[in-house]
Amino acid sequence: MKRIEVVTEEPMQVIDVTDRVAELVAGTEDGMAFVSIPHTTAALILSEDDGELRRDIIRVARRWLQDCGPFEHIKKNNPNTVAHVLSSFAGTSLTIGISRGKLDLGTYQRILFLELDGPKIRTIRLRTMPM
Amino acid sequence: MKRIEVVTEEPMQVIDVTDRVAELVAGTEDGMAFVSIPHTTAALILSEDDGELRRDIIRVARRWLQDCGPFEHIKKNNPNTVAHVLSSFAGTSLTIGISRGKLDLGTYQRILFLELDGPKIRTIRLRTMPM
Amino acid sequence: MKRIEVVTEEPMQVIDVTDRVAELVAGTEDGMAFVSIPHTTAALILSEDDGELRRDIIRVARRWLQDCGPFEHIKKNNPNTVAHVLSSFAGTSLTIGISRGKLDLGTYQRILFLELDGPKIRTIRLRTMPM
Repeated sequence: MKRIEVVTEEPMQVIDVTDRVAELVAGTEDGMAFVSIPHTTAALILSEDDGELRRDIIRVARRWLQDCGPFEHIKKNNPNTVAHVLSSFAGTSLTIGISRGKLDLGTYQRILFLELDGPKIRTIRLRTMPM
Repeated sequence: MKRIEVVTEEPMQVIDVTDRVAELVAGTEDGMAFVSIPHTTAALILSEDDGELRRDIIRVARRWLQDCGPFEHIKKNNPNTVAHVLSSFAGTSLTIGISRGKLDLGTYQRILFLELDGPKIRTIRLRTMPM
Repeated sequence: MKRIEVVTEEPMQVIDVTDRVAELVAGTEDGMAFVSIPHTTAALILSEDDGELRRDIIRVARRWLQDCGPFEHIKKNNPNTVAHVLSSFAGTSLTIGISRGKLDLGTYQRILFLELDGPKIRTIRLRTMPM
């Protein structure tokens, strides 16, 4: 299992980690990449990556959940249920094919790490399965 | 990697692609099917498929996001953030077991292609892993 | 394919099934676990598990969808579109790495079965792929 460290700086932040994952995959000619995070207040998604969309994703995340409270789950005065629910529903792993040493992504698909309860030091785990 | 082409006709449309995926899987006796799309404004989901539910899924998708704007991400005068966010959160791939040449689906589970920014010509990719 | 039976007692209920999945995985030293459910009104998620958060997850699920109706999909006078949509979007399968006979989960990650249209008798399916 290989690891990538991601240092987040904001409470909610979208970080493109595609190139770092692609580098670690390079040794596998053909197969599958399994990318996952061991966290419960962050998510991994596939999405186009541009500044406007990054801000829109956070905007939607905030709006979806701001009216659902009050919540019971509170850690250190931080009612971070929003982070937990989005992490659970959006998901914390991605399976991606590998062809000729490259990730099988569409033209606009990027691997985005979605920080929902930062700032924190986060880990992305990568497993490759040759086929 | 095998491919299925899906031609969508509406801005938002739910299309059952189970039978077409099942056909391509038929050569594998036992293993896993990995079904994915290279798109960022569409999704692949497992769901029951009937006309009422298809319309309800689109209804929910529209409602969830209609009040979250205004959005910044605009392509050709089309503020399609809704499509991007739902694609990212619902997901663009499915992993499904294969037993005796058939997809391990429940009685009501169908593979649905969810067009969120159509009409478009879309591609579904299929990989099978024998076990 | 191995199976776990889950008996739910409430219309919406969150049940931690991590230990039961971990037991069935024990024979595999290194590889992947593929956990799935054949249902369209339940979901499998990774999340922290505590009583407050369990209630918050159900709270969010209810709120997200309560204003999206009226719905067309009605089974036995039960408009369970909410259950279908959350099942589809949150997902009905999880892929988890296995290292030294144990699931590669983070400190707080638990496998939660999310009943959305109970009470019912449910099945969790498990496949392991050695690597």
